[in-house]
Amino acid sequence: MNRVAIPAQGVFRTRLRTRFAETDLQGVVHHSVYFVYFEQARVEYFKHLGFDFWQLRRDGDLDITVVEAYCKYLAPARFDDELEIAVWTSQVRRARFTIEYSIYRGDTPIAWGQTVQAAIDPRTGRPRPIPDVMRRVLTAQLSDSGLSLI
Amino acid sequence: MNRVAIPAQGVFRTRLRTRFAETDLQGVVHHSVYFVYFEQARVEYFKHLGFDFWQLRRDGDLDITVVEAYCKYLAPARFDDELEIAVWTSQVRRARFTIEYSIYRGDTPIAWGQTVQAAIDPRTGRPRPIPDVMRRVLTAQLSDSGLSLI
Amino acid sequence: MNRVAIPAQGVFRTRLRTRFAETDLQGVVHHSVYFVYFEQARVEYFKHLGFDFWQLRRDGDLDITVVEAYCKYLAPARFDDELEIAVWTSQVRRARFTIEYSIYRGDTPIAWGQTVQAAIDPRTGRPRPIPDVMRRVLTAQLSDSGLSLI
Amino acid sequence: MNRVAIPAQGVFRTRLRTRFAETDLQGVVHHSVYFVYFEQARVEYFKHLGFDFWQLRRDGDLDITVVEAYCKYLAPARFDDELEIAVWTSQVRRARFTIEYSIYRGDTPIAWGQTVQAAIDPRTGRPRPIPDVMRRVLTAQLSDSGLSLI
Repeated sequence: MNRVAIPAQGVFRTRLRTRFAETDLQGVVHHSVYFVYFEQARVEYFKHLGFDFWQLRRDGDLDITVVEAYCKYLAPARFDDELEIAVWTSQVRRARFTIEYSIYRGDTPIAWGQTVQAAIDPRTGRPRPIPDVMRRVLTAQLSDSGLSLI
Repeated sequence: MNRVAIPAQGVFRTRLRTRFAETDLQGVVHHSVYFVYFEQARVEYFKHLGFDFWQLRRDGDLDITVVEAYCKYLAPARFDDELEIAVWTSQVRRARFTIEYSIYRGDTPIAWGQTVQAAIDPRTGRPRPIPDVMRRVLTAQLSDSGLSLI
Repeated sequence: MNRVAIPAQGVFRTRLRTRFAETDLQGVVHHSVYFVYFEQARVEYFKHLGFDFWQLRRDGDLDITVVEAYCKYLAPARFDDELEIAVWTSQVRRARFTIEYSIYRGDTPIAWGQTVQAAIDPRTGRPRPIPDVMRRVLTAQLSDSGLSLI
Repeated sequence: MNRVAIPAQGVFRTRLRTRFAETDLQGVVHHSVYFVYFEQARVEYFKHLGFDFWQLRRDGDLDITVVEAYCKYLAPARFDDELEIAVWTSQVRRARFTIEYSIYRGDTPIAWGQTVQAAIDPRTGRPRPIPDVMRRVLTAQLSDSGLSLI
């Protein structure tokens, strides 16, 4: 797979610039950093959907935590690259949901990934159902790249 | 899957202690850091097998790069945890190979993951066959947890 | 010192948003991350001055490396804070120069710091004089907060 | 200063191995990572002195936070280097104390640094006096390299 099928709808896009500290001695962005990029895109996507991390914690006594993470690296990102990240929801269940990501530099696909998130109680770490409003919004956003691996 | 089947043979084990800087505001080790732990285990496993990163580069004009990475998070690691990482080879092909990892804190499974590595020319980034000696050694080490996802 | 005197002129400003992965279990941005913020501000300041990292390397066979770094932490930055970084040149010598930084969240001073950079030959790591054009531009930018520690 | 005077007594020593992910495109350990090394050495030094991070938090409602940090880089650390860190206490005051660090690779001095720590209330972030037992133990450890910068 060197092509990434981005869904036709329900896709949020954001941009970031790679940092010097994120590179490694092979001259490229270290592979672990892509998960930080995914997270950054997810945070902005969630804000766009009206979810606020701090408010969820305060009002709902709720933390969202990553329970699975996958990345396929297609071409290296380098220092000072401007990257575009497309992000969408591909699955919503009672207590977890899957977000997908495609990273591009111009027309060049750089990476594709998925993360599965679960809702937990911040004090006990125990799983909780996703709040109704969050499930409704995410379900309305559902898109499918047909590529789901996890 | 909350149990991880570690193969009966061909498994290398190493230990590390989690760092303060690796935690996040949820009070646990950030999910991106597990890929750094996997890498650290892989580096020590490779040394154990007789591969030296710097010598491969000098003699063979060869870099090994991660082309896929997956982690399933089973229980949170916290600051100052002593973790054991089991690492083994689960697949070897002409130009890539798969390494698997299980992280434990005592008897508690913390995470399970896989990374796929490819051999590349360090100057061009182009794929190259894995050197014969490396393929022979890795093939002799092949183990199978029966869990491969990637 | 809880007030930071930013010079009246020669100051470049940039903004960034703190990331979840940058926080630690005390719920604040980890102190080591401020040096990454300083670097990010320095990269953008240098671009603004017309210096290009990649071109310096290609044309001048030159790397810039940090030889001293200091940060004073005034108030904690938290997840999803929007920070403003003021950056200026406070000293230029034959082979090294000092950049200063003030980080703010709105009107609240968050941190103040300095880094000293040296020019080196990328192959040998040996010190080299700063290129003339760079010294001229930096010297024309000289500002003084009167706070220099290093 | 390319020599570092380590005090004759009161010095704790620990070792660590640099990680691949800690390097940058200049082929050396990124300068921000040295503060993570300092922290790791400080954590082990504190354990050696009988302080336990988690217990301080539980029993004393106390967090220790870094309020100033300085590093002088003397020679680059590279991937897979085994480093020795010498760590000692150089100043103790009512609400803060200074720790110093020297990093070596064999006989080669790699870096020297200082951090100033303050005691705070973990809920409010407000400064608090250092607990008596901690001040007594640190004061008994006092050493002086004669190099203090901060």
